[in-house]
Amino acid sequence: MTLANNTSTDGTALRIGLFGFGCVGQGLYDVLRRTPGLRAQVARICVKDRSKPRTLPLGMFTYDRGEILGDDTINVVVELIDDANAAFDIVSSALRAGKAVVSANKRMIAERFDDLLAIQNETGSPFLYEASVCGSIPIIRNLEEYYDNDLLDGLEGIVNGTTNFILTRVSDGEGAYEGALASAQRLGFAESDPTLDVEGYDAVFKTVILAAHGFGVVVKPGNIVRRGITTVSSFDAAVAKRHGYTIKLVSSARLADGEVSASVLPTFVRDESPLASVRDEYNAVSLHAAFSDAQLMVGKGAGGHPTASAVLSDIAALRYAYRYEYKKIAQGLRPRFSQRVPIKIYARSSRRDLLEQIPWSTIEIEHRSPDGSYVIGTTVLDELSASEAFRSDETFIAKVV
Amino acid sequence: MTLANNTSTDGTALRIGLFGFGCVGQGLYDVLRRTPGLRAQVARICVKDRSKPRTLPLGMFTYDRGEILGDDTINVVVELIDDANAAFDIVSSALRAGKAVVSANKRMIAERFDDLLAIQNETGSPFLYEASVCGSIPIIRNLEEYYDNDLLDGLEGIVNGTTNFILTRVSDGEGAYEGALASAQRLGFAESDPTLDVEGYDAVFKTVILAAHGFGVVVKPGNIVRRGITTVSSFDAAVAKRHGYTIKLVSSARLADGEVSASVLPTFVRDESPLASVRDEYNAVSLHAAFSDAQLMVGKGAGGHPTASAVLSDIAALRYAYRYEYKKIAQGLRPRFSQRVPIKIYARSSRRDLLEQIPWSTIEIEHRSPDGSYVIGTTVLDELSASEAFRSDETFIAKVV
Repeated sequence: MTLANNTSTDGTALRIGLFGFGCVGQGLYDVLRRTPGLRAQVARICVKDRSKPRTLPLGMFTYDRGEILGDDTINVVVELIDDANAAFDIVSSALRAGKAVVSANKRMIAERFDDLLAIQNETGSPFLYEASVCGSIPIIRNLEEYYDNDLLDGLEGIVNGTTNFILTRVSDGEGAYEGALASAQRLGFAESDPTLDVEGYDAVFKTVILAAHGFGVVVKPGNIVRRGITTVSSFDAAVAKRHGYTIKLVSSARLADGEVSASVLPTFVRDESPLASVRDEYNAVSLHAAFSDAQLMVGKGAGGHPTASAVLSDIAALRYAYRYEYKKIAQGLRPRFSQRVPIKIYARSSRRDLLEQIPWSTIEIEHRSPDGSYVIGTTVLDELSASEAFRSDETFIAKVV
Repeated sequence: MTLANNTSTDGTALRIGLFGFGCVGQGLYDVLRRTPGLRAQVARICVKDRSKPRTLPLGMFTYDRGEILGDDTINVVVELIDDANAAFDIVSSALRAGKAVVSANKRMIAERFDDLLAIQNETGSPFLYEASVCGSIPIIRNLEEYYDNDLLDGLEGIVNGTTNFILTRVSDGEGAYEGALASAQRLGFAESDPTLDVEGYDAVFKTVILAAHGFGVVVKPGNIVRRGITTVSSFDAAVAKRHGYTIKLVSSARLADGEVSASVLPTFVRDESPLASVRDEYNAVSLHAAFSDAQLMVGKGAGGHPTASAVLSDIAALRYAYRYEYKKIAQGLRPRFSQRVPIKIYARSSRRDLLEQIPWSTIEIEHRSPDGSYVIGTTVLDELSASEAFRSDETFIAKVV
């Protein structure tokens, strides 16, 4: 493959082997055909299900990975399948075969970040995955290229459209979690098994990727403090509103005193903050850099078209041999990862013992009423995450910013 | 200078010659001193006014350009002066002396775009100017690196904070243009002579830069259809509101059928569109790309800190020998520039003859009342801009989108 060495402005013609042919893959196929200027075409598509009716001639399809991975005329692999383990096999084999790879598989990337870095270093093959975080928002590219780690000190994102849709409904006073989830499912914004989304796992995968590109810190998904939104109630939304907040599921990574902390937590976001106005299935990332106020990037985060648009931009970048340089990881001065940071929280439960058991540093508000009892105060992130209250589904806990 | 050839991840230490020491320059100086990781320091500062008191030892300053331009130990020039002609002399001399240059001077860049391109080609020296458009929003970098011209079909921006502040006041029903301008001046959001801002010239300079990096089209500022906001009235704001719009000064560049058009016009923006919610002195750019819904980038556009943050990011990028590649300009398939495009407008005047004289293609609404008379209809951009009504200060004209 001459791909990685070719930096001419004319770019290289790309012959793509596509894995997966769901709505993203189909959209991608169409747009590549309509855009000859990109000089990129899908040469072969590998799918699993032989019985599914296909919109293209059957000759385009194969059920054998080897027919793409072993084909030297194919210089780019686009991986759009669900299974993270199978995706890792495909991506690593393709990189080792000297092919450039584009993927949208956040779970695979987050879980195997170090392995994928090693394979990139070993093979020199470019691996791009803008579509894995916030769909059409070019956040990875911006973290890689624009926000130097000496300048960036925090990023906060609404990175999961399903939970944002649900929380928008709950915040608007349109009922509680269950109803909002059902309506999200009806409208196609939530899957029939919504666990990965509503429990915050999906956001954690994306946070791993953001922390790596933002701060050069590679963390296992399990080390990011996570809490989902399944216990949020109308009462919580009303308390937030009364205090001038909106509840969002916020993915956060922050650098302070040379240490990075990261979490995915329901968060009381100030109504006047830019993230508060990001509604429904939209995603957004707010970047705090030295010297500048928060920058906000907003766009659609999931679904066929936003994902395909990010995949497409990655494909376009491959024509110019673009690759992530992972400068922040390569640098000597990588910050340490530490969850030992102060955090202000709202904790609500009908069980007083759970609330009292949280290792509070200070308490600001203690509220008891027949409708609900809550405490707003400060604690320490890692101690909080180890507490029974944090793990209990008899509590709702949110960061307050 | 080895700068341009050095692509090691460690980067090169940067010795900066700074032209101008206003609030941006001072902020920049401070942050570079506080951020040793950037390995960039201000070596010398060239200023004009010998009598002004300075916050640094006088030995840091010079009044002679040659002391920076002729100093081979200085490898980066940061140009932050007002005068566009003097800035061009400094920038071109610095590039020719093999120095990398960072500038925030949108007027100079817009007026001398072709010359600056030629000098960059001739010398190979990097020239970065992210701070020239929308302050801290990394829009040039995103247009250069992420939004391929085969994929981008339009960009619309609120690129001038002064006019956005004024229009926010007028739209909120807090009175007419004059009062809003006075309040902007009081708060430091408008200069004592606000012409460049309120007449849209500043936005035109930025639009030239956006069109070049977005679509590879280099246009003279005079060829961009421009109208300011000085004749906007409370009546106009009320009409807009009644129809579900907010008035914004919108810089627009669009690609359709291989042709690019560009304008700076007061615009009725749909209330539900992301640009409508960008208030006060904030800037924003909305990008429309194939396949994806609009992406929005929001941030502060002017003032010391946002400008300094962009300059700083450019300086940080120079450590890795980053340069604009102007791929879209270099490509063979550059779109043509044409203002012969249909446009829907709102035109209000007490002089019926002016309204009638607009070369209307179709008329949707004709409204006559003692409070004000207006027409909403379609016309053609270049014909509109040639009409007496467009140039008259007895009319208010806004695009309707």
